[in-house]
Amino acid sequence: MLKKIDHVGILVASIPEALKFYQGVLGLSVSGIEEVKGEGVRIAFLPVGESKIELLEPLDKESPIYRTLEKRGEGLHHLAFETDSTVDCLKGISAFGVMPINEVRQGADGKEVAFLHPKQTHGVLVELCSRGERV
Amino acid sequence: MLKKIDHVGILVASIPEALKFYQGVLGLSVSGIEEVKGEGVRIAFLPVGESKIELLEPLDKESPIYRTLEKRGEGLHHLAFETDSTVDCLKGISAFGVMPINEVRQGADGKEVAFLHPKQTHGVLVELCSRGERV
Repeated sequence: MLKKIDHVGILVASIPEALKFYQGVLGLSVSGIEEVKGEGVRIAFLPVGESKIELLEPLDKESPIYRTLEKRGEGLHHLAFETDSTVDCLKGISAFGVMPINEVRQGADGKEVAFLHPKQTHGVLVELCSRGERV
Repeated sequence: MLKKIDHVGILVASIPEALKFYQGVLGLSVSGIEEVKGEGVRIAFLPVGESKIELLEPLDKESPIYRTLEKRGEGLHHLAFETDSTVDCLKGISAFGVMPINEVRQGADGKEVAFLHPKQTHGVLVELCSRGERV
């Protein structure tokens, strides 16, 4: 059902500042930067192996992740798994009473995504994502 | 320098309870369970793609991760990258003034590991690990 770790989301105050470490020190490369205005977030993608690191920076103080940043500081934010089909995966796990926070939607990088609440996953904001579907 | 995400460490109160979700609901499989007594931790390994999820459970109340669990609750704990050589990687990043928390040591799963402090990495406990070396 889960194919791989698609990405690990890391919440940062400033992408340029964070890149001094992830790019400058660790040697990762940025494959793209994207703004998802509906979620108030700018995202830098840094591929590593078959996965990516996603650095998440709030676009403004209205951004939901700005409040998380104020409360908890920078750090690990969410863990995303690639599935063959997010829709089918959600159907499968709904049999166990596990429901996504929102309906499946178009996320960054052109994927169909859904999130599971940390209360259902032992404290982790889990993202399920897939490509090539129409939501 | 970094080859892939080796694993994502998730701190949990109870591995059997957490497996009800990660194994029972998400469908991942456990490839092994190991105790690292020196660090007071029991670890369950769940492969996914080229990476693994590591569920970390404190062995007792003296365990360093028990205090983290009490303070922050369950959730994402650390992010580990596989390198060709942890020793060489640390040499490379030391040129930028980034030093590991401890010397390179033998970690779970027979790897040579070192950790970078969240203060140096924008809030993430970063592990570097490699195989086949003698520390």
